[in-house]
Amino acid sequence: MFARRIDRLSASPIREILAHAQDPAVISFAGGLPATSLLPQPNLRELPPTLGQYGTSEGEPALREQIADQLTAAGRPCAADQVLVTAGSQQGIDLVAKLFIDEGTPVALESPTYLAALQAFRLFGARPLALPTGPAGIDPERLRETGAQRPAFAYLIPNFQNPTGYCYAGDNRRRVAEALDDLNLPLVEDEPYRELAYETVDRQPISGLLRRAPWVYLGSFSKVTLPGLRLGFLACSPELYPYFVRLKQAADLHSNRIGQWWLGQYLASPDYPVQLARLRDHYQRRRDAMATALDRYFGELADWRVPPGGLFFWLTLKTRLDTRRLLPAALDRRVIFMPGEPFYPDGRGAAGTLRLNFSHAEPARIDAGLEILAGVLAEAMASA
Amino acid sequence: MFARRIDRLSASPIREILAHAQDPAVISFAGGLPATSLLPQPNLRELPPTLGQYGTSEGEPALREQIADQLTAAGRPCAADQVLVTAGSQQGIDLVAKLFIDEGTPVALESPTYLAALQAFRLFGARPLALPTGPAGIDPERLRETGAQRPAFAYLIPNFQNPTGYCYAGDNRRRVAEALDDLNLPLVEDEPYRELAYETVDRQPISGLLRRAPWVYLGSFSKVTLPGLRLGFLACSPELYPYFVRLKQAADLHSNRIGQWWLGQYLASPDYPVQLARLRDHYQRRRDAMATALDRYFGELADWRVPPGGLFFWLTLKTRLDTRRLLPAALDRRVIFMPGEPFYPDGRGAAGTLRLNFSHAEPARIDAGLEILAGVLAEAMASA
Repeated sequence: MFARRIDRLSASPIREILAHAQDPAVISFAGGLPATSLLPQPNLRELPPTLGQYGTSEGEPALREQIADQLTAAGRPCAADQVLVTAGSQQGIDLVAKLFIDEGTPVALESPTYLAALQAFRLFGARPLALPTGPAGIDPERLRETGAQRPAFAYLIPNFQNPTGYCYAGDNRRRVAEALDDLNLPLVEDEPYRELAYETVDRQPISGLLRRAPWVYLGSFSKVTLPGLRLGFLACSPELYPYFVRLKQAADLHSNRIGQWWLGQYLASPDYPVQLARLRDHYQRRRDAMATALDRYFGELADWRVPPGGLFFWLTLKTRLDTRRLLPAALDRRVIFMPGEPFYPDGRGAAGTLRLNFSHAEPARIDAGLEILAGVLAEAMASA
Repeated sequence: MFARRIDRLSASPIREILAHAQDPAVISFAGGLPATSLLPQPNLRELPPTLGQYGTSEGEPALREQIADQLTAAGRPCAADQVLVTAGSQQGIDLVAKLFIDEGTPVALESPTYLAALQAFRLFGARPLALPTGPAGIDPERLRETGAQRPAFAYLIPNFQNPTGYCYAGDNRRRVAEALDDLNLPLVEDEPYRELAYETVDRQPISGLLRRAPWVYLGSFSKVTLPGLRLGFLACSPELYPYFVRLKQAADLHSNRIGQWWLGQYLASPDYPVQLARLRDHYQRRRDAMATALDRYFGELADWRVPPGGLFFWLTLKTRLDTRRLLPAALDRRVIFMPGEPFYPDGRGAAGTLRLNFSHAEPARIDAGLEILAGVLAEAMASA
């Protein structure tokens, strides 16, 4: 009755777990939600009446100019006519899948990688080629080796990766770009966490280092403005752009214009840099609170690094239990986390990993929640 | 380099023609745009701050309740947990394609049918089975005959169809529903024009007459509120619902919440029924102005019926020229229309048809534009 892809349409573990994240009695380390108390309040009082009408598939011209300027300043020179406004960066992932993926198409991915991207690529039939990633990023030699299998693209999250928090080393960015250029392999660079930097690190977009390979850059406004707006963007090399515009048109004609208008006003206002500084300050404090609590409760249980940015700690248990099986016991004690196993394209190295978000819970709850979670883990590890 | 579907990604003629529709010097009969002067101005002053956060894939609960109530009142009984808020009904079409269509999957469609649906289904690889349609709708016997080819679904627009303006006769609705039930063939019923009725006609949703066949109902708020919001909905039989929610989540997580909030307020306010009455009144007057102008200028050139609702007149030329070739001459004289040929799934019967929108241009411009267009057609027909 259904298309073959529906056999690959798994229920998202994020979705089921996030249902509990809405319960105020639960301390959630599971999602990637911004702190609700830090969200700006949109001022929509001067909304131009013409915004009610249909708009263009590409997006509002003024907003596209702003995005192109930001991206150019970030080290990925780009013009407004390379920018497509999307319904969050999740839609960018859907459009990338539509452009590149047939059933069986190989796609090179970090291992572990962003779960919702992995699921969307799988839905379209991608065959994942896993590139193990570490604190300095993937190994460019492993990337070169995948060339023999002719992947359609490499999907990378170089800055403050989801789920690991890793940030590519500067020299590795250059080596990865060289490998992509040598293979002429399209890069899909996903950068939702760019602005959430708590240390001074190299954040040069790898797409900005390419000389020859086609590129797609996915950006999000959900982490720095309002996720409820559902606005992000896709920028790409000029030869790819007309395809993405037509795919966007077939998907939903264009993105909502009221949100685009407000976003354009907000990005240009003095409030935006103030908000960015405020978010960095608050999230850095929560990150530090989580680092302190991890030192206090997890020293015997797991290994981790303090992430230089983003929203997540990534833990590897000293006894490598499947952390999915710990979730019911944790939920019984009103704490939830994200098991690490689903983030691995091929499952290799997956057991005993988990992701902890530090942006959503308040610092006092971070300490209380991690004490509870350490108890759950210690019990499971003792009986393993 | 790209997926095979990209070979089927045609540039939309609507898109290229609508680029000219934005030019105020051009009289446009091409698009399906509401009259900008009739759009409501959203009042967003009491926006709840929590709407900035991520929302649920299904949509805002209060809005889903309102939609279920409206649909139940329209004759398609349905509960809120069967309603998914989408980014316009175009996204509903994308989700339907994802659920049902593999490369080569047969799909039964009215001929002619809505161009953007035809293109989206083709993008996913659908093989269209054309069901010629007329003033009373498709022939249920022809629908039964397609059963041998096992189409994945039938896509129908029973009320004030795009492009023809046809509205299914009441007894034919029952006969089509019986054929669908007998075949157990899923119905995808698209109803963007339901509220734009200028005559008292049977508008009973065919999905509401089914006893057994699965169904999907696509609704839009673009024709009765603000297209720039990009909000519509999908309702369906319970067994299909979980798949659509997961496909929506993979497409863009959820629809924008600010628009959903305003829409919920607006649908519940006394302003909404006033707006519906106002739209019907204005559009009926424009329809009548177009009917008068057609009688004046087109009597020797074409045949048509006055549509009982919707946004379009559908013309068949007495000399069946390919109307796509008339577009440059019309545009030279600053009038645009929509050629009818692309609306035909298999091209049969397509030549010499065109669609004229009457909602966007003001009555005086309708008369002036049709006089010009009749001149273009008469010249072409004389030299044919």
